[in-house]
Amino acid sequence: MLIVAERINASRKPIRAALEKLDAAAIQADARAQAAAGAHYIDVNGGTFPGREPELLCWLVETVQAVADLPLCIDSPDPAALAAALPKVKGGRPMINSISLEGERFERVLPLALQYRARLIALCQGETVPASTAEQKLDLATQLVERLTRAGLPIDDIYVDPLVFPLATESGSANATLDAIGEIMRRFPGVHTICGLTNVSHGLPVRKLINRTFLVGAIARGMDAAIIDPTDMQLMQALLAAEAVYGRDDYCMNYIGAYQDGKLA
Amino acid sequence: MLIVAERINASRKPIRAALEKLDAAAIQADARAQAAAGAHYIDVNGGTFPGREPELLCWLVETVQAVADLPLCIDSPDPAALAAALPKVKGGRPMINSISLEGERFERVLPLALQYRARLIALCQGETVPASTAEQKLDLATQLVERLTRAGLPIDDIYVDPLVFPLATESGSANATLDAIGEIMRRFPGVHTICGLTNVSHGLPVRKLINRTFLVGAIARGMDAAIIDPTDMQLMQALLAAEAVYGRDDYCMNYIGAYQDGKLA
Repeated sequence: MLIVAERINASRKPIRAALEKLDAAAIQADARAQAAAGAHYIDVNGGTFPGREPELLCWLVETVQAVADLPLCIDSPDPAALAAALPKVKGGRPMINSISLEGERFERVLPLALQYRARLIALCQGETVPASTAEQKLDLATQLVERLTRAGLPIDDIYVDPLVFPLATESGSANATLDAIGEIMRRFPGVHTICGLTNVSHGLPVRKLINRTFLVGAIARGMDAAIIDPTDMQLMQALLAAEAVYGRDDYCMNYIGAYQDGKLA
Repeated sequence: MLIVAERINASRKPIRAALEKLDAAAIQADARAQAAAGAHYIDVNGGTFPGREPELLCWLVETVQAVADLPLCIDSPDPAALAAALPKVKGGRPMINSISLEGERFERVLPLALQYRARLIALCQGETVPASTAEQKLDLATQLVERLTRAGLPIDDIYVDPLVFPLATESGSANATLDAIGEIMRRFPGVHTICGLTNVSHGLPVRKLINRTFLVGAIARGMDAAIIDPTDMQLMQALLAAEAVYGRDDYCMNYIGAYQDGKLA
């Protein structure tokens, strides 16, 4: 299970505040905590401060790299911000979050992924309306995988994110995403699937309970990467248990090791 | 989700001790707690005290009925014990736990189910070896459903239990059970599936975490009944969240109601 650590994102108030003050210590504390908690990639998102995103994203890359020896996931919808930040990435192949078929985004992000040999998160985002059904998500996934591999991106570097929408307004949204995950993994051997969790619980109480229940279901359907907060102990426990239950942890050795390390307490 | 409450079972030490002393208060405390926690059926299992099972099972039925206004699930592998206890059941249709294709059990339990109009748990237990694979479980489920419905039992009264074996020795055991659940629900519209959870975590640490992770996956595959301890708050929270996530709780109204009742705290 590839863990992309999500905490350094300008949509979170403490990160937005740290960006406004260029408070490196606050960012680095989050980077260290996520690395210690088992992250494989640290996502950095500089938000949408008007005109300043490229500069802030570069600052985040350098700030995080100063303390964490992990590859980074460069997170922006803006190809210009990605193009500014990617040359700053040292050591380890970067991940790009994300490409989609919207507007010029595909044509502008693809060359960056190829140039920097980046792993690439590919969003099943429709051009006009959200892709709500499993069929719509699968149709977009198919276009993305076919166009990316035809352009020379190895399928092993593609992480399809089928997106999930709030259950509170659409009871079938998690099922649609889970069905899409299962079918994408079946149809494209070698590809990866990934998802952020937080959207699913928008508007509901005790959101973390819903988020980890959704994660368990996604692991059951074959999802092999996730954009999560690895410092959330209960979430990580659910992840470890799900890998054991769904046959992705031979003889439950990881699970037992986590117990011995005190991580299930 | 039909909840069969499992605590009054002689395999648990406090219940065994209560049976030895005919300590009605201890049994009744468990019955009341389970009823208050949301049980739909209370399972009663009198264990295998040599020669005394029919007598003890009758005592359990009367002891529980004195305090709990819920139907009972009469739990014994011995048709003679079932035959003794079933006439004692007052109000509400009983459930029988269980029938299987082993030896004479099928021919002896079936008439009891028909006579008492009981709901019936049907175990996918092989005649000689455990049914480990999804195919073996499905084959046994098919035989059970076909023979029971042919004998006149309504399909809506059949609760197929595909059984689950410990992950610690068989990493694929939960997946086999979940695949069987999905296929049984697809193949036999109207039938129910049910499972006990505790076997899956045998030999592993933090068993309740594994148990509830398995329950989440089973709900995702369509299981609509479970033999569980409803006084386990975290398990019940996982159940409520799973019903919300997997589209079995319109607009998450049950989940939100449980939150408002303080059950998700």
